[in-house]
Amino acid sequence: MFNRSVPLQAFNFIDSTLREGEQFRGTHFSIDDKREIATLLDAFGVEYMELSTPVASPQSADAIRALADMPRKFKLLTHIRADRDDARLAVDCGVDGADVYIGTSTYMREYSHGKSLEQVIDIGQEIVAWLKAQGIETRFSTEDTFRSNFADVMTVYRAMDLAGVDRVGVADTVGIADPLRTYNLISNLREVVDCDIEFHGHNDSGCAVANAFCALQAGATHVDTTVLGIGERNGITPMGALIGRLYSYERALVDKYDLPLLAQIERVVAGKLGIEVPFNTPITGAVAFHHKAGVHTKAVLRNPTTYEAINPEDFGVTRYIDVAHRLVGRNAIRDRADSLGIDLADEAIRQVTLQVKSLADERQISLDDVDRMLGEALPVVD
Amino acid sequence: MFNRSVPLQAFNFIDSTLREGEQFRGTHFSIDDKREIATLLDAFGVEYMELSTPVASPQSADAIRALADMPRKFKLLTHIRADRDDARLAVDCGVDGADVYIGTSTYMREYSHGKSLEQVIDIGQEIVAWLKAQGIETRFSTEDTFRSNFADVMTVYRAMDLAGVDRVGVADTVGIADPLRTYNLISNLREVVDCDIEFHGHNDSGCAVANAFCALQAGATHVDTTVLGIGERNGITPMGALIGRLYSYERALVDKYDLPLLAQIERVVAGKLGIEVPFNTPITGAVAFHHKAGVHTKAVLRNPTTYEAINPEDFGVTRYIDVAHRLVGRNAIRDRADSLGIDLADEAIRQVTLQVKSLADERQISLDDVDRMLGEALPVVD
Repeated sequence: MFNRSVPLQAFNFIDSTLREGEQFRGTHFSIDDKREIATLLDAFGVEYMELSTPVASPQSADAIRALADMPRKFKLLTHIRADRDDARLAVDCGVDGADVYIGTSTYMREYSHGKSLEQVIDIGQEIVAWLKAQGIETRFSTEDTFRSNFADVMTVYRAMDLAGVDRVGVADTVGIADPLRTYNLISNLREVVDCDIEFHGHNDSGCAVANAFCALQAGATHVDTTVLGIGERNGITPMGALIGRLYSYERALVDKYDLPLLAQIERVVAGKLGIEVPFNTPITGAVAFHHKAGVHTKAVLRNPTTYEAINPEDFGVTRYIDVAHRLVGRNAIRDRADSLGIDLADEAIRQVTLQVKSLADERQISLDDVDRMLGEALPVVD
Repeated sequence: MFNRSVPLQAFNFIDSTLREGEQFRGTHFSIDDKREIATLLDAFGVEYMELSTPVASPQSADAIRALADMPRKFKLLTHIRADRDDARLAVDCGVDGADVYIGTSTYMREYSHGKSLEQVIDIGQEIVAWLKAQGIETRFSTEDTFRSNFADVMTVYRAMDLAGVDRVGVADTVGIADPLRTYNLISNLREVVDCDIEFHGHNDSGCAVANAFCALQAGATHVDTTVLGIGERNGITPMGALIGRLYSYERALVDKYDLPLLAQIERVVAGKLGIEVPFNTPITGAVAFHHKAGVHTKAVLRNPTTYEAINPEDFGVTRYIDVAHRLVGRNAIRDRADSLGIDLADEAIRQVTLQVKSLADERQISLDDVDRMLGEALPVVD
């Protein structure tokens, strides 16, 4: 494509719709809901799914057991505190892997768990060793990594790598990271540990997609995503937008996923939450391929690639050329006439275009208005 | 703050809600609408406003004249093709500045205007010289910059700088740019020209906020934004999210704006378009400061900064601690009891927490359910 200046590693999606997504306002997934969503995401091709800790409630534990037993290709994870009892219950529920986390910033250490850095490392190494002895794929993540002391987090990561962890996690828990900082931190971490690297990024300042992408460019191997980005506060990296980012970088990167399923998965989850798919959602939002200004529609009618970096057909969604407004151009009006089988001379098309602009200056108009004006124009051919 | 590794230049917002935003589906602003939106954005403090070309329709020209005459602090711009007639009409309408654009990618040159690079430069230099002679602040932007040949765009920018342009524009017209490419391109451009640099970025792959921020880090001086990011397809950099990004980087950067007006401006524009403010909108979205999981609420009750990088009070919006779900923790239940004036022993709080989790496992519950359980608990003090 156009921008492959930085190579990308192989990567995995850790879908956290059933963990981080449970922390979204109004999410109350039943076990059937969880099984339905997991089945769709399995068909889409996500490599991992992460569920809420079994400690949260009896249903949370039962849901893990239910998904452990379903036919699936993804690896099943749960998200637990750095606590032996939590870890034991996770193993009892049948997970393939455990995502262990603990806060490392002064905020987290003071207002959350109250432990020193040495205690964090001791507890972490013990949990990692125990989980690995049970044959569990183990991740150890710091929380609030970007407000932690850089030396501290690198020390923790190196200690966990030495303890045999499969993956260390970098978490932008409060959504404060920016792309360059993310790239720099993960590039440095790539030099410190040999294990895999996971990135988890919140969207409080609108950079969760970009930060995840920069993390992958810097050498991260796993990225946390949720359907539509649902999660605590305004959520984390949305899977669909990250797919769009990777596709725009190099189409082949997302060949492993069943792209036409994306819109359906989002509709199912949005329906369960009673929310709308935001209008500005890349690819699957209602206006993602909506073309309006005359300069744009003229070119899109000749070659859609002129104003589309992503082909909507790859996702089973459609493009729309909007002609009912004051910014319309003659080429779009000509195209609309053609689609109605109305054959008009250039001068007639010019006149109808001016009529459309004039009426749109007075009031909001519809496609019916445009079609009526085309139908009433003199059908002469010059 | 926490991440000031790259210094930021002074910057200006060019609000394009009345130009790019007019290209959003369903936007039909009357002149009164335009005046109302401009008045709000003037009070907020945007430095520039850009309107649709006066060539688009009679109302488009009248709107420019109306805004030129209103009391305002912002500079008034219009967005025109590299065409002498368009430029003359813009000047006649009373603008302070003209944003001239022309496509430079092979796509644009083949499917849009059909001109060679030499023609682009000749036309551009002539228009710039003519506009400057009229005393008009002039920007010259390439279109689809990121799919253009790097040597070509730098050649065009240097030629315009030599012709005396005030500002050159970098446009990610199809939303294909990523943060590192944006940073790299603008860093290089910063070495090529002496004039100001503007960035305009679409959001097709979810990076419009991050790219705008990286552009500023690389030395851009002006960024195009719209209210809620409305524009062609799924739009461009949303002003509110970029405010959040800048605030998270360094609070003082956005002191020049009237932050508590942000939510009102978004509501007014969304109301005119008949759209919802997307749930995932930073700062002003319905869930931006919604805390749910027990680990989070425990810490937020002690110090909100633990899980908030942005203070909602600075924007006149409120935080919400959600207790009616299976992920609830004891501290949040204790806080709710306190706010109801219900004094319960620790064991009673523990029991109510388990009851809430149990009922939430069965069905979706509400705050009323929690309050009822708290009211029915034995009000003994241990």
